[in-house]
Amino acid sequence: MSPQVIPQALDRLIRDLTKLPGIGKKTASRLALNILRSPVAEARELATALNELHSSIQLCSCCFTFSESDPCTICGDHRRDASLVCVVEQPGDLLAIEKAGNYHGHYHILHGVLSPMDGIGPQEIKVRELEARVNSGTIKEIFIATSSTVPGEATASYLIDRLQDKAILLTRLACGIPMGMDIKYADKHTLARAIETRCKTT
Amino acid sequence: MSPQVIPQALDRLIRDLTKLPGIGKKTASRLALNILRSPVAEARELATALNELHSSIQLCSCCFTFSESDPCTICGDHRRDASLVCVVEQPGDLLAIEKAGNYHGHYHILHGVLSPMDGIGPQEIKVRELEARVNSGTIKEIFIATSSTVPGEATASYLIDRLQDKAILLTRLACGIPMGMDIKYADKHTLARAIETRCKTT
Repeated sequence: MSPQVIPQALDRLIRDLTKLPGIGKKTASRLALNILRSPVAEARELATALNELHSSIQLCSCCFTFSESDPCTICGDHRRDASLVCVVEQPGDLLAIEKAGNYHGHYHILHGVLSPMDGIGPQEIKVRELEARVNSGTIKEIFIATSSTVPGEATASYLIDRLQDKAILLTRLACGIPMGMDIKYADKHTLARAIETRCKTT
Repeated sequence: MSPQVIPQALDRLIRDLTKLPGIGKKTASRLALNILRSPVAEARELATALNELHSSIQLCSCCFTFSESDPCTICGDHRRDASLVCVVEQPGDLLAIEKAGNYHGHYHILHGVLSPMDGIGPQEIKVRELEARVNSGTIKEIFIATSSTVPGEATASYLIDRLQDKAILLTRLACGIPMGMDIKYADKHTLARAIETRCKTT
C-alpha cells in the first residue's frame, strides 16, 4: 500500500494510539476510524480530557495516589482510620480496594514493585516514604496488599523484613486471590473476602 | 466506593474513553491510569492528534473516502484505472483492500449498509452518488466488495438490482472470505486471492 493512502492526521492518531497498552495496529485503526466517523465534538472532548489530565492531577504528598487535592480525599477524610495503612503497588489497586467497599483505612502507593532485573530497587519505589510514615508514630497497622505475582510477593517480603522491628501490626491480604492474578482484575466479592480475612504475617 | 475517590479529570477521561467501540470500563480505567503514569507529552500528543483529526480530513467529493485533499490521492492518481470502481462499506475496507496490493482501480465508499431495522435505506448511504458516477459514462466495471455479512449481502443485492440495466460489468469479491467475517479482519493473502478471482454477478 502506498503510504499516502492513509491521511497523515489519521496515521498520526493511529501511531499515538498504539503507544497505549494492549492497543495494537488493527485496534488503533478501528478506534481512529470510529472517532473520525463520530461527531467532531466527541474527539474534541476526548482531547480536552487528555490535555487537562496531568495539569489537574498531582500526587498526594501523604499516600502518593493521583489526586486533584493535596492531601487527597482519602487522607483528608477524618472519618477514615489513619492508624491503618494499606500498601498497594499502583493507584489502580487503590480503586479496586475502594470498590470492595469494606476498607476504611488510609493507603500508601508504592508506584511499582521491586524488580532487580529492571533496575527497580527500594530507592525507585516509595519505600523510604512508607518507613517515614511508620516512624511518625501514628500508624498501628500496615496492611500489605501487593499483587500475588512474583514481584508483588518479593516486594511484600522485603517490606515485612524492613518493618518487622517497628511497634506495629503487619498484615497481608488473605488467601482468596488466585496466585498470579493482578488484584485489579479480581471480582469485588473475592477481594472483599480477602480484605475481611487478612492475616498477620508470621 | 465514594465517587470522589477517583479524581474528576481521570473520571472524565475514563467516561470519554468508554464511548469508543470495544472499550469497556475496566479497559478505559487501565488506559487512563497508564496515560496518567506516562510523560505528560504523550497525552498532549494524543490530544493534539485528536484535535487536528477532523479539521484536516474531509470526504473526497468523488469517492467519499476520508482524505486530506480533494480529490483524494487515489482519485487524483492518473496511473490508476478510473474505469474500474470498487464499492465498499467504510474507509477502513478501502485500507484493507489497498493492503492486499493487487487492486489498481478507484473506489466508492457507501458509508454504511442497508439496514431497514435501523432506518438506513438507500437515501442514507452513498447509492445515489454511485449511480451518478455510473451515469457519467466513464465507468466500465463496478466491483462490489461489501462484507459477507447479512446487511453487506443485502446491500450488494440491492446495488446489483439497481445497476444491472446499465452498460457496465458488475463483479463481486470472490469466495475466499469466510461467511460472516468483516473484510477488515481478513488476512491480506485471502483478500488478495478474493480480489484476483472476483466473479461476474449472475
